[in-house]
Amino acid sequence: MDISNIRRINVNTAQSYDVLIGEGLIENCAEFVTSVVDTKNIAIITDDNVDKLYGEIVQKSLREMNISARKYVFPHGEASKSADTLNNIYDFLCENHITRTDCVIALGGGVVGDITGFAAATYLRGIDFIQIPTSLLAQVDSSVGGKTAIDINAGKNLVGAFKQPKLVLCDTNTLKSLPTEYFIDGMGEVVKYGMIKSKSLFNELENHTLDTIWDVLDDIIEECVSIKRDVVVADEFDRGERMLLNFGHTLAHSIEKYYNFTGISHGVAVAVGMRIITEIFEKDGTVSKDTLSRLVSCLEKYSLNVEIEPSVKELGDACLNDKKRESDYINIIICDSIGSSFAKKMLMNDFLNLLK
Amino acid sequence: MDISNIRRINVNTAQSYDVLIGEGLIENCAEFVTSVVDTKNIAIITDDNVDKLYGEIVQKSLREMNISARKYVFPHGEASKSADTLNNIYDFLCENHITRTDCVIALGGGVVGDITGFAAATYLRGIDFIQIPTSLLAQVDSSVGGKTAIDINAGKNLVGAFKQPKLVLCDTNTLKSLPTEYFIDGMGEVVKYGMIKSKSLFNELENHTLDTIWDVLDDIIEECVSIKRDVVVADEFDRGERMLLNFGHTLAHSIEKYYNFTGISHGVAVAVGMRIITEIFEKDGTVSKDTLSRLVSCLEKYSLNVEIEPSVKELGDACLNDKKRESDYINIIICDSIGSSFAKKMLMNDFLNLLK
Repeated sequence: MDISNIRRINVNTAQSYDVLIGEGLIENCAEFVTSVVDTKNIAIITDDNVDKLYGEIVQKSLREMNISARKYVFPHGEASKSADTLNNIYDFLCENHITRTDCVIALGGGVVGDITGFAAATYLRGIDFIQIPTSLLAQVDSSVGGKTAIDINAGKNLVGAFKQPKLVLCDTNTLKSLPTEYFIDGMGEVVKYGMIKSKSLFNELENHTLDTIWDVLDDIIEECVSIKRDVVVADEFDRGERMLLNFGHTLAHSIEKYYNFTGISHGVAVAVGMRIITEIFEKDGTVSKDTLSRLVSCLEKYSLNVEIEPSVKELGDACLNDKKRESDYINIIICDSIGSSFAKKMLMNDFLNLLK
Repeated sequence: MDISNIRRINVNTAQSYDVLIGEGLIENCAEFVTSVVDTKNIAIITDDNVDKLYGEIVQKSLREMNISARKYVFPHGEASKSADTLNNIYDFLCENHITRTDCVIALGGGVVGDITGFAAATYLRGIDFIQIPTSLLAQVDSSVGGKTAIDINAGKNLVGAFKQPKLVLCDTNTLKSLPTEYFIDGMGEVVKYGMIKSKSLFNELENHTLDTIWDVLDDIIEECVSIKRDVVVADEFDRGERMLLNFGHTLAHSIEKYYNFTGISHGVAVAVGMRIITEIFEKDGTVSKDTLSRLVSCLEKYSLNVEIEPSVKELGDACLNDKKRESDYINIIICDSIGSSFAKKMLMNDFLNLLK
């Protein structure tokens, strides 16, 4: 393939890897896969939706390079990001004799990437894996940075590991096949990047709409991945700077939990979480009125300013098991102006009182 | 307590920590725990056997320092080292609001240490944990070095993570309460250390019996931990030198699998595995007759020269999913003379043929 149009972002964590962004990467995936792993035995993990569109294409590319590429397909949706699916993946890897020098490919959205990454982090105490994210949310956010996880009864992403992929292939052709709601979902995280780190990205979002954003989408994906790269390289294991990426996420996780991880998508929940936390800190003057109103208008533009059932107070209790808790404290991310953010360490009880 | 008799071995991995060996460490555990972690909320994970003996003692020590120390107790035995127990541990940690800055204590033998370590490695993507090993096997081997794991259908330890503890407390008083079979089990790994790395340790074992070994047990534990420390520090993530610790283990895992992880203990299986692999490589002259006969005599001394049901050929198939496989190859550890060992990379098929 013509690789001159491919954008390449290097993520220089302890294990360095590239994120490639461009059209047609999936049909030609074997070319890139074989440049980073040396094996003839690869397992593909995907969900039923993505499998229909791209499963065979990935297998074909790999088979043309004489690579055995067996597929494990699970039902789409957050409910699959479970211990049960994880155990099925382990069994599948064993049955197909995937060893320490072989490789797993995560082909799909955030759910596929998170659970496959966690399986790769723990199977045989860790084997290589490659991300082929097919949703906007996965391309701009979850496929980069090495956070892997599954959900458990008590909450989302409460079990996981840090495990960087060997390669991330963002084929922007896949976004054209996305249902609008999935695209909107990804835009939730895109708005987040503008809010926490990039005034220029936010301005660009303000200048576009859901219809025109396509004209600049490759630029936007590249900008989001670059921001994430910078933050992750500065703080691979989430002890400081990286917390900023959690803007809106504490409440988002509570919202998703309220809806049993099915009634509202992650990106939309993040959008609502960003709005609520910004409203709360606008009241005490930490955030300007202008910042709040620009955020709300921007969310509106991308169909992300939605109403939710639970009251803000109800969301509080669900925060008690938030990963970001540290004993009696919780780190809350606040954007005081567009493109500028910080973490505020609060007593859990003080935070819960704010929500009342 | 009088700490002058405590032996201290520092393990200088990426996260440095101490292994303390001595009598009475359990009654005084809070003193040592609080020297490495700063939290008032600790979870203790243990099994029903160990709980009866030491559960309350550990809790009492921690409570005297105003530390909340809730206990999760599961049934003893390898069958508990499962995904089900793991999920119960996760739920327990959530229910007790264990956060990223809190800590988990593994109180027990190898099963407790392995599964608790893996829970600590993955809960919230990793929290601190402390090992209080109460069996000889756990004190000399599994509690040190950061290998954590659970078993899955396809085999033992096939899912896990590298996660170093913050501290290891080897209270040698606990060994006095061990049933003889558990003590013998630990001696399997002790003989292994002599075989792979220490002629002097092996000589000492030859000069003692199951009755007299108690006189020098603290020395022996210290020697084993020191050997393990040296190997682990040289190769934390098991890519070279550390493979030597697997002497006897490839066949041991097949033997344990044959008996469904219940009919034979790990240390005894390792002993049989060491004997079989040494017999095989004695035939082609890699190992001397003298080395084999000294190994067999030493195993005999410690009731470790046992007969097993499966034929050597039957053990072969179960090796196919061995973690030490690398695509079509497997690394087999051979002791060519007492105290000297090396890894031999063989084609899987060649190894299976040797077993026929």
